[in-house]
Amino acid sequence: MWKANPITSRLRVKWPIIQAGMAGGTTTPELVAAVSSAGGLGTLGAGYLSAERIRLAIREIRQRTDQPFGVNLFIPEKFDGESQVSAPVSAAMNEMREKLGIPADWKVTRFAEPFEEQMAAVVEERVPVFSFTFGLLEQRWLSVLKQQGTTVIGTATTVREAVALEASGVDMITAQGSEAGGHRGSFLPDSPSNLVGTMALVPQIVDRVRIPVIAAGGIMDGRGIAAAFALGAQGVQLGTAFLACVESGAHPLHKQALREASDEATVLTRAFSGKAARGIENDFMIHLAPHENELPPYPVQNALTRDIRSAAAKQNRPEYLCLWAGQAAALSRDVSAGELVSRLVVETERVCRSLRWGE
Amino acid sequence: MWKANPITSRLRVKWPIIQAGMAGGTTTPELVAAVSSAGGLGTLGAGYLSAERIRLAIREIRQRTDQPFGVNLFIPEKFDGESQVSAPVSAAMNEMREKLGIPADWKVTRFAEPFEEQMAAVVEERVPVFSFTFGLLEQRWLSVLKQQGTTVIGTATTVREAVALEASGVDMITAQGSEAGGHRGSFLPDSPSNLVGTMALVPQIVDRVRIPVIAAGGIMDGRGIAAAFALGAQGVQLGTAFLACVESGAHPLHKQALREASDEATVLTRAFSGKAARGIENDFMIHLAPHENELPPYPVQNALTRDIRSAAAKQNRPEYLCLWAGQAAALSRDVSAGELVSRLVVETERVCRSLRWGE
Repeated sequence: MWKANPITSRLRVKWPIIQAGMAGGTTTPELVAAVSSAGGLGTLGAGYLSAERIRLAIREIRQRTDQPFGVNLFIPEKFDGESQVSAPVSAAMNEMREKLGIPADWKVTRFAEPFEEQMAAVVEERVPVFSFTFGLLEQRWLSVLKQQGTTVIGTATTVREAVALEASGVDMITAQGSEAGGHRGSFLPDSPSNLVGTMALVPQIVDRVRIPVIAAGGIMDGRGIAAAFALGAQGVQLGTAFLACVESGAHPLHKQALREASDEATVLTRAFSGKAARGIENDFMIHLAPHENELPPYPVQNALTRDIRSAAAKQNRPEYLCLWAGQAAALSRDVSAGELVSRLVVETERVCRSLRWGE
Repeated sequence: MWKANPITSRLRVKWPIIQAGMAGGTTTPELVAAVSSAGGLGTLGAGYLSAERIRLAIREIRQRTDQPFGVNLFIPEKFDGESQVSAPVSAAMNEMREKLGIPADWKVTRFAEPFEEQMAAVVEERVPVFSFTFGLLEQRWLSVLKQQGTTVIGTATTVREAVALEASGVDMITAQGSEAGGHRGSFLPDSPSNLVGTMALVPQIVDRVRIPVIAAGGIMDGRGIAAAFALGAQGVQLGTAFLACVESGAHPLHKQALREASDEATVLTRAFSGKAARGIENDFMIHLAPHENELPPYPVQNALTRDIRSAAAKQNRPEYLCLWAGQAAALSRDVSAGELVSRLVVETERVCRSLRWGE
């Protein structure tokens, strides 16, 4: 273990490299355990899982590794599942359903898994690390987690969010730059723009909080990790790089799309879930783009598009999959997660050692 | 001089720190000379200057320093100055004119300075470094500049643009990340998004070109410089950090706004010039935001808003100034440019020396 680093010493991991808790079935117990076994911190992205499936996944992770790991959940928002979806949005979605040969007007029975139940499972399983996005965690949960020794990590996309998270009592903050793939963790609205690049975000957050900062967004190799440390981060979180790994549950066509993506391939969209997220632009996004402002909010839109995404996966139609990806997806590698952690460690060491300033 | 670095050795400067060639009167000969005298590379932002004013400025820089410096120009685009501005856009601009007490319907006599004349001045003055944005430089100019020993630097916001610039024969490439303040240098359209963060952009460009890469976007201190070098850049370009310096010609209220800006304060707008640029959101931008898609292109919109911006400067009305700023503007410092270069050098050395990976 790297004792001088507050993240490795607190999390009891060898390297301050965190695999992002991506939801949607990509963070399989195999992936989480492989990252943790290799000395990083694997994270189960449990946002869409029921309490029962969370318990099962945690148990499987524990069978596969004796090393620490994390679980990530989404802070819930109030929503109205009864609100009508506008006719043009319905029509646009039914057009995609027709192309996939699945029934029109999919009826949603459950919009989101109950957060109370999800949290109860996390607490009961006494997970080593709990991370969350989309908001602040209620104090009652924070106290329980802290009492039982779980390290709590919040997600910030702005300095304001980082300051609010520190005040709430989290142990560490993930600073998510605009390069990051998947959902934006933003939760404080009303500013000109919360899309701040990693290079600008990390040092400004580091200057304003006392707790350790984990950099995320565009980090794919040892160069990115060394850069994040130069900016003042004490850990890094990688999503896209682990999504492409052998053990990830991402669709094979999604993994292929990552490796083939250009730096210009990704955009932010609300089309899949109702919340802004970065992915490789495809027909699904383009088809719903004209309706971006009339889409129902998360988790309603997420539930409403589930049948389309799942049919697209079964039929190998990447044009209707959600191809979450960061802006450096092309640097992803088709290796096992353990191999990736080893390479990242060696590369970062090499970059740090060879970094020279002046003669 | 730092001999092992291809940028310092080629440019004959002590440090691979370039002051961005910001147009609009901010890069005064005092600023350019101060940066160059301190061992960096000062750059005259000459995009809006006539050939005669370029000559005068270059001569003044040379009186102030015997060190190398650069001149930056905008690659011109075809435009139709006769095209009608839509009535709602005219009305919105006249509302601002009314608030500033200046005449409605400002008549533009000259949309842009002739590029041929500007280039002729640059060639005639045999400047040490010539940099450009918004496109590729014609071969005839490239040959003349290379023959006389001028180093030529192009600006890329994507891998595709970097590859095109290298193929065109430039000596170095500035990789401009989405965090950067002021105009986006983008010139190859038709992709999902060319707003790529520095952390993702720099390593992807470094992997694809053989010529040296200068990182730009969100770099404000030694942490950012060390991070850029970790990503594989061999030089850095800072705009906002130098904009805030004593010698910069930026309006005092602009400098104040930079220091007070939050990370969320800036947005991209076409409102001031017709080309996308990043600045602190103010009334001018908000007022024209509903018309963003009907605004005339650069340089027409730029010429049409000149009277408003210039009246706002005279009347100390920051709400109508163009407050260009990068996403880490709050890290800017109220010091002389020479002092800033010295601090950057010391800070970067400290960050590089203290960067540790493992025990």
